[in-house]
Amino acid sequence: MNNASPIDVAWMRRAIELAARGIGTTHPNPVVGCVITGPDGHPVGEGFHAVAGGPHAEVEALRMAGAAARGGTAYVTLEPCNHTGRTGPCADALIAAGITRVVYAVPDPNRQASGGAEKLRSKNITVQQGVLQDEAEAVNQVWLHSVRTGRPFVTWKFATTLDGRSAAPDGTSRWITGPLARADVHRKRAECDAIAVGTQTVLDDDPELTVRDENDVPAARQPLRVVVGDREIPTTARVRNDRAETLLLPTHDPAEVLRQLDDRQIRHLWLEGGPTLAAAFLRAQLVDQLVAYVAPAVLGSGYAAIGDLGAESIHHLRRFKLADVTRLGDDVRLILTPLEPQRTH
Amino acid sequence: MNNASPIDVAWMRRAIELAARGIGTTHPNPVVGCVITGPDGHPVGEGFHAVAGGPHAEVEALRMAGAAARGGTAYVTLEPCNHTGRTGPCADALIAAGITRVVYAVPDPNRQASGGAEKLRSKNITVQQGVLQDEAEAVNQVWLHSVRTGRPFVTWKFATTLDGRSAAPDGTSRWITGPLARADVHRKRAECDAIAVGTQTVLDDDPELTVRDENDVPAARQPLRVVVGDREIPTTARVRNDRAETLLLPTHDPAEVLRQLDDRQIRHLWLEGGPTLAAAFLRAQLVDQLVAYVAPAVLGSGYAAIGDLGAESIHHLRRFKLADVTRLGDDVRLILTPLEPQRTH
Repeated sequence: MNNASPIDVAWMRRAIELAARGIGTTHPNPVVGCVITGPDGHPVGEGFHAVAGGPHAEVEALRMAGAAARGGTAYVTLEPCNHTGRTGPCADALIAAGITRVVYAVPDPNRQASGGAEKLRSKNITVQQGVLQDEAEAVNQVWLHSVRTGRPFVTWKFATTLDGRSAAPDGTSRWITGPLARADVHRKRAECDAIAVGTQTVLDDDPELTVRDENDVPAARQPLRVVVGDREIPTTARVRNDRAETLLLPTHDPAEVLRQLDDRQIRHLWLEGGPTLAAAFLRAQLVDQLVAYVAPAVLGSGYAAIGDLGAESIHHLRRFKLADVTRLGDDVRLILTPLEPQRTH
Repeated sequence: MNNASPIDVAWMRRAIELAARGIGTTHPNPVVGCVITGPDGHPVGEGFHAVAGGPHAEVEALRMAGAAARGGTAYVTLEPCNHTGRTGPCADALIAAGITRVVYAVPDPNRQASGGAEKLRSKNITVQQGVLQDEAEAVNQVWLHSVRTGRPFVTWKFATTLDGRSAAPDGTSRWITGPLARADVHRKRAECDAIAVGTQTVLDDDPELTVRDENDVPAARQPLRVVVGDREIPTTARVRNDRAETLLLPTHDPAEVLRQLDDRQIRHLWLEGGPTLAAAFLRAQLVDQLVAYVAPAVLGSGYAAIGDLGAESIHHLRRFKLADVTRLGDDVRLILTPLEPQRTH
């Protein structure tokens, strides 16, 4: 949208900021933000979608605006929905409130919910689409990916020494990275709705796979724990405790793992490894993002962070785009994205 | 120096900027910068030491100042020398020019040259030491290290994938990093006065080990090429061509390598590997800086960037301080320094 007015851009940017507050808690729904301005152009209401089953962003904003919404404009990051799920259609709510213009950024890719713009137009509401679409897509990257491809967005996370080791020869690995990097892992785990490891990692490290704060207190909302592989997991394994739900998937096929998680409406899978599971996903071209925590340290021996990918020559090197570099204490976090689209399923 | 005046600090900062211009070309001498202000406090001359055998910074600055130096102040990053080498003592030059006050940052650690401050004081010149000493030491880090410890400062450079591989299983490694990272390697090579590799690297990769620009044109001044190890190097090896001097050191002892290089007044050794030679220096605690070029790529198999360091458990992890993180195109350069002082010889 090249010809959006500066005012529209400003309110849409605010709506995107609001949408971002829902990241990590709206699964399986998208994040959505909404700003309502009255007929004189002043803001009269704002809202965001905070949790699945809770009110949609438009409903929150309309509630705050009350009668002041009449004759006004609604800025929404995603096309208002036109279906009755756990809440009524937002298009109807905007119509009922007397909104006369709706500006939205991203068309709803979800067939079930779309048609909102059409319905609004049928009631003579002016509808404009595409304002700050790229920014609004970015804030909903995971949900849009999931709805468009029919499989969860996959983030492979790993911690490594500068020489690519994730554990010493005796299997010990606590800790390669420092407290700031480890806290960041918990923050990013909290934005996902499932965490997967292979059975070997459960047997080697006995991880709990929960989101915890710096005092090791578990968060109220926990992602689904997923253990992939067919080795027996002891009943005493921490991943079997009652702090979160756990799904055992006795398969080695990444595509099958993603199918089963999609059935459960998992939008964002946080893949923690080990090296064999991570290599299987990379080989299957089913990794959408890499988050690497690199410690300024070397081991010179021990376990590799990633298993065999079949590379024989430098021409088999798998390159990624460097999306972000952030220093976390004495460690460095790199976020990488694939150069080519990954497989959809 | 806590009580330095803002004016003294400002001129010393300028002198340090001037000194930095000499980095990479003054070997085996230190870098030195000098600013001269006249009796009214205005600058009348400045200079830096550009090349061994060329004029010292003070002499350059006095030449620019001419008669205006009389009654003025000289700001020098390093204590003015008091010995006659390829040029006369700078202390004498300052005295002859009628300078009445000398402010310097770092005392000269070189016994042969020191005594300059004493001589100045004996001529009733006011002498003040320590202004911006830390910054002035930083710009001369390599030279000060070399003079204080009696061995070259050692920088280990390596390029690696995110999973710690420096070459694919078939030995190919061109290129893991991109053009900006590779150009940076040449810039940093140019700041050193020797580049070392093991014989295995010469046999595997046949590197030329010269400083070249982006068009592959060799620089006018080339560091000494050093090949460590006792394998036979073919006469056709590129490291034996006439573009730079080459020293063959048939030893496996890093301390012996440094002794021989110190005899040749090498101040800064750029250690390029391979993994065995780098591991030998790390094990011997003779690495003063690590420069790692990390590519956003994974191989999953191939040669490790660093050889065995004897680590069995995570407690043997060798940690470093993260001194700098810089993005170079799609690659990331990390500069690390040891947490503990390294061996002096």
